[in-house]
Amino acid sequence: SKYAYVKNFEIPDPLLPNTYMVLRVDGHGFHRFSESHSFTKPNDQRALELMDAAALAVMQEYRDIVLAFGESDEYSFLFRRSTQLYNRRQSKILSTLVSYFTSCYVMNWSKYFPSTPLEYPPSFDGRIVLYPTEKEVRDYFSWRQADTHINNLYNTLFWALVQQGEMTPADAHATLKGTVSGQKHEMLHSRFGINYNTLSARFRKGSVITRKTVINFIVWIDGLETPESVPSDEPDGLKRKTKPKVTLEISHVDIIGDEFWNKNSDIL
Amino acid sequence: SKYAYVKNFEIPDPLLPNTYMVLRVDGHGFHRFSESHSFTKPNDQRALELMDAAALAVMQEYRDIVLAFGESDEYSFLFRRSTQLYNRRQSKILSTLVSYFTSCYVMNWSKYFPSTPLEYPPSFDGRIVLYPTEKEVRDYFSWRQADTHINNLYNTLFWALVQQGEMTPADAHATLKGTVSGQKHEMLHSRFGINYNTLSARFRKGSVITRKTVINFIVWIDGLETPESVPSDEPDGLKRKTKPKVTLEISHVDIIGDEFWNKNSDIL
Amino acid sequence: SKYAYVKNFEIPDPLLPNTYMVLRVDGHGFHRFSESHSFTKPNDQRALELMDAAALAVMQEYRDIVLAFGESDEYSFLFRRSTQLYNRRQSKILSTLVSYFTSCYVMNWSKYFPSTPLEYPPSFDGRIVLYPTEKEVRDYFSWRQADTHINNLYNTLFWALVQQGEMTPADAHATLKGTVSGQKHEMLHSRFGINYNTLSARFRKGSVITRKTVINFIVWIDGLETPESVPSDEPDGLKRKTKPKVTLEISHVDIIGDEFWNKNSDIL
Amino acid sequence: SKYAYVKNFEIPDPLLPNTYMVLRVDGHGFHRFSESHSFTKPNDQRALELMDAAALAVMQEYRDIVLAFGESDEYSFLFRRSTQLYNRRQSKILSTLVSYFTSCYVMNWSKYFPSTPLEYPPSFDGRIVLYPTEKEVRDYFSWRQADTHINNLYNTLFWALVQQGEMTPADAHATLKGTVSGQKHEMLHSRFGINYNTLSARFRKGSVITRKTVINFIVWIDGLETPESVPSDEPDGLKRKTKPKVTLEISHVDIIGDEFWNKNSDIL
Ligand SMILES: Nc1nc2c(ncn2[C@H]2C[C@H](O)[C@@H](COP(=O)(O)OP(=O)(O)OP(=O)(O)O)O2)c(=O)[nH]1
Ligand SMILES: Nc1nc2c(ncn2[C@H]2C[C@H](O)[C@@H](COP(=O)(O)OP(=O)(O)OP(=O)(O)O)O2)c(=O)[nH]1
Ligand SMILES: Nc1nc2c(ncn2[C@H]2C[C@H](O)[C@@H](COP(=O)(O)OP(=O)(O)OP(=O)(O)O)O2)c(=O)[nH]1
Ligand SMILES: Nc1nc2c(ncn2[C@H]2C[C@H](O)[C@@H](COP(=O)(O)OP(=O)(O)OP(=O)(O)O)O2)c(=O)[nH]1
Ligand SMILES: O=P(O)(O)OP(=O)(O)OP(=O)(O)O
Ligand SMILES: O=P(O)(O)OP(=O)(O)OP(=O)(O)O
Ligand SMILES: O=P(O)(O)OP(=O)(O)OP(=O)(O)O
Ligand SMILES: O=P(O)(O)OP(=O)(O)OP(=O)(O)O
Ligand SMILES: [Mg+2]
Ligand SMILES: [Mg+2]
Ligand SMILES: [Mg+2]
Ligand SMILES: [Mg+2]
Ligand SMILES: [Mg+2]
Ligand SMILES: [Mg+2]
Ligand SMILES: [Mg+2]
Ligand SMILES: [Mg+2]
Ligand SMILES: [Mg+2]
Ligand SMILES: [Mg+2]
Ligand SMILES: [Mg+2]
Ligand SMILES: [Mg+2]
Repeated sequence: SKYAYVKNFEIPDPLLPNTYMVLRVDGHGFHRFSESHSFTKPNDQRALELMDAAALAVMQEYRDIVLAFGESDEYSFLFRRSTQLYNRRQSKILSTLVSYFTSCYVMNWSKYFPSTPLEYPPSFDGRIVLYPTEKEVRDYFSWRQADTHINNLYNTLFWALVQQGEMTPADAHATLKGTVSGQKHEMLHSRFGINYNTLSARFRKGSVITRKTVINFIVWIDGLETPESVPSDEPDGLKRKTKPKVTLEISHVDIIGDEFWNKNSDIL
Repeated sequence: SKYAYVKNFEIPDPLLPNTYMVLRVDGHGFHRFSESHSFTKPNDQRALELMDAAALAVMQEYRDIVLAFGESDEYSFLFRRSTQLYNRRQSKILSTLVSYFTSCYVMNWSKYFPSTPLEYPPSFDGRIVLYPTEKEVRDYFSWRQADTHINNLYNTLFWALVQQGEMTPADAHATLKGTVSGQKHEMLHSRFGINYNTLSARFRKGSVITRKTVINFIVWIDGLETPESVPSDEPDGLKRKTKPKVTLEISHVDIIGDEFWNKNSDIL
Repeated sequence: SKYAYVKNFEIPDPLLPNTYMVLRVDGHGFHRFSESHSFTKPNDQRALELMDAAALAVMQEYRDIVLAFGESDEYSFLFRRSTQLYNRRQSKILSTLVSYFTSCYVMNWSKYFPSTPLEYPPSFDGRIVLYPTEKEVRDYFSWRQADTHINNLYNTLFWALVQQGEMTPADAHATLKGTVSGQKHEMLHSRFGINYNTLSARFRKGSVITRKTVINFIVWIDGLETPESVPSDEPDGLKRKTKPKVTLEISHVDIIGDEFWNKNSDIL
Repeated sequence: SKYAYVKNFEIPDPLLPNTYMVLRVDGHGFHRFSESHSFTKPNDQRALELMDAAALAVMQEYRDIVLAFGESDEYSFLFRRSTQLYNRRQSKILSTLVSYFTSCYVMNWSKYFPSTPLEYPPSFDGRIVLYPTEKEVRDYFSWRQADTHINNLYNTLFWALVQQGEMTPADAHATLKGTVSGQKHEMLHSRFGINYNTLSARFRKGSVITRKTVINFIVWIDGLETPESVPSDEPDGLKRKTKPKVTLEISHVDIIGDEFWNKNSDIL
């Protein structure tokens, strides 16, 4: 039609090729949302598991995501460097994935909060950040996990002071002001008998999702010609590759040190 | 932390000031989604009303949207030209609003499809398009509504041929190929007794949402000093403005001609 | 070749269609350049005329520029809103025009500074700014011309105090600090007998370049059939249009008020 | 002033941090320019040396450029990955450097073409391309040098056929159509006695500019305390670093193989 020219105002927005893409989603106004839905303080196991469920679904759907990390109301997704998803169109990728994450969050809500109806629609912002090198990608994930640690240590002690210590929030903040990490561990232990390191790893380390690709083969065993599925580490023979089966693995491990990255050397 | 430098890779993405912004969301793979959830063909009243409900919620939440138009699996939102929403940051606006739309769609699903559970999470892509002038904004909405008309006329006749005429889809397409608008009207009438213009306006024209701002005043009536709420067209006196009450109005009217725009002259 | 894939990293950078484009070039480090080449203070007629010459050449070459304004070491160029120059590719337009301006400046240097050889290569930065409406375009040019006025009034008085009044630069700045426009006019007049408004309009108003399109016609005069070129305002007859001849007009007039824009209503 | 708001329409355009930046300038319409100024065919030594002179000046001025490669009417400049030049603002870098290159080209024209006055102002387009990895940077320069080779072999033979072989250009093109590299070498040799590999390396390989940084030290020699400048490879002692002296080196060597990059390992 004579109006179709308006489509020309849609400006292309390709992301630089061969560059690592991180998509981070973060709950919009979750301070209020966590209050309205009575999230446990400082960590609500159900809320975090719901975030994990949404992230797992995103990774099931979008196969070019090779790593995800979640904490609090946020999740970060790393794409393989060479992904051609939606021709690397920024708005298309950003909007579609944030939408899908949101959809999964809402659809799964009642599974994790069976007796807490949604008061209002939760939403998430999203952003795509490009990183040229492996180093920055590792530092990005270290940044998020260090943040998890700092916040969780603070919040754990803060809420202990308030809930068990019966301090006012203002007093609790004042007490914590200027303390370093070691002092907080110490206070947790001496005042509340809490050994920080024994708290749930999900709270201390956040959630890490990796992808295990299991390639199945159809094997014609000599003489029988019966196709049979065997794991990919079978010795080479009369095999035919089938569609790789992707499984996702969630854990709550350290991703700052080298160990994780050495074990998962296919990520970068 | 020493990792925080990675935040510097978040590049600013401000949208040009004082330019009309249109956000369009469109269902991701709704061909499949409409099949999986047995949408009525060619138009599913429940599906369209659910889209309208989500759009209404978006407009309730984001007050700088002055007009919305919906059809099929898509909705377009026009912001007032001078909006400062999220400092006009493109990714922030795009992601947050697409997320909110999606959230409303999923949350309201069961209200419109009480006996059809969601088979899988629906999602939407989104894009922001900038238009410098009023003319382009009008042409944009004309483009979408003309599209509604063209598709609906075609689909209405197509499904009549298939469902009532017992044609195969291939034959129906072949029959329609090359026909102009008038011939389609004619075929609908002569073969199926359908007067196209009497079909639901929602199907023919799509959905148009405008904003009616009702400003209430607290009035101290002489001698009584009793505050009382009165509509804004009251003669000026001892009044005090209160927070304006915003009401939204949905209709299925023509937005190609001048009449709509003359009546709603505050939009542009 | 197998290396050609690197060209894919050239990301498209189209400018929003149908939006006013202003290109401003500004001398790089002209504080130093004007000293090195002994520019007259506060205004060097030769330097300004050289800038004008370069701008005129740019407008001769790039026909979609409809207006230019210059002052000091800068020039602004306005393109007609619908220009398709280089498909509106930002980097292509920016680089090519800044390059051409620079080339003209250097090539014409010796014409305006016959006895001052170039000490080192002058260069210019450039930027493209988009404006959606006429109002902003007018305000843009008002901004630049107001700047001309403010700077020139200040500098004229400053250098009078220093050169004729034998003040130190520091004392001159101190004397001027906090004075308003009227006081500066007054000081110029009472101390130095200078009526500001009689100073060169080039210095006070900057340079304004507009385009006069003169369309020539080939006319077959009845009976003679001798083609002859006549101005376009000739009464219609047996004419044939020839390639329009473009002439440029430079002036030093006010472009803040309406008069200029009413007279040149084809610019916007 | 009340107009200054128009400056807000200048949108930030930072380049992704820590990513290799290549700026390529290319003569605008040099097909015509080389004809107008009677460039020798297929290679004009003076024209190429003038390009080299401009590029050398650019590298003298912009210290973050670590490598340049030139051929025909183009030059490519590689910045060190971490450059903070103009805060990595794209338009600022692009415009300023293209302008400076142009300025140097025009200023130096008469030195290389003493008896050929400039007929009109030459100009250059420019573009900035980002590359995330070393591999792409190497492939970029291989792309340009492979192009040099392909074009030069073709052009050398073409002009031999035309000038010495007295073919028409059309016949020469027809003769060359479909020939592979080996055949061209062979024809050059058998028909014109030209051993391609003995032609000027500048023509065959283009120009490569690298930077040699010589750091000088002020040394207090024991007992004498006489500062003296010594090369940087002097044994450590009572030294004080002085401003590093940068020298540029131009050569016409292969940059496709590893040798160059091993020798110049500081570039990437
Ligand atoms: N009680 C509780 N609150 C949580 C939990 N996870 C996240 N939150 C809350 C705590 C924070 O107020 C908020 C996350 O902080 P943000 O910096 O993302 O702020 P918020 O989402 O309010 O604003 P934003 O829209 O992201 O700028 O979510 C949880 O497991 N339990
Ligand atoms: N039966 C039925 N289908 C509908 C209705 N509204 C939308 N649809 C379907 C018809 C189309 O196949 C589809 C919308 O077309 P699109 O061009 O948006 O394609 P789709 O969403 O499949 O792909 P996309 O991800 O947008 O590229 O949604 C409805 O009311 N009834
Ligand atoms: N004496 C004299 N100086 C002039 C004339 N026109 C311009 N200039 C000088 C005065 C200023 O120092 C300078 C222009 O100011 P800018 O703000 O553009 O600064 P500059 O070019 O030094 O730095 P930039 O690279 O633009 O940031 O040029 C003139 O006609 N006579
Ligand atoms: N005779 C001669 N011509 C040269 C020499 N170096 C470059 N040229 C000419 C040959 C080509 O026609 C032209 C460079 O090709 P380009 O692809 O850059 O085309 P051109 O500059 O004409 O157009 P453009 O504005 O870059 O798209 O410059 C030379 O040394 N001798
Ligand atoms: O989705 P289509 O095919 O109707 O066309 P489009 O929306 O312009 O394409 P895309 O969604 O890929 O931007
Ligand atoms: O949301 P904050 O305050 O933690 O910080 P940010 O995410 O960098 O800010 P924004 O969400 O506005 O990009
Ligand atoms: O200039 P060309 O034709 O060699 O090819 P290009 O440089 O990729 O084209 P453009 O200069 O238009 O970017
Ligand atoms: O150059 P200035 O300081 O007058 O101000 P600007 O032009 O806005 O700064 P920049 O040249 O760095 O864009
Ligand atoms: Mg945030
Ligand atoms: Mg949040
Ligand atoms: Mg958060
Ligand atoms: Mg689409
Ligand atoms: Mg769709
Ligand atoms: Mg659609
Ligand atoms: Mg400046
Ligand atoms: Mg300057
Ligand atoms: Mg200036
Ligand atoms: Mg080119
Ligand atoms: Mg060229
Ligand atoms: Mg070239």
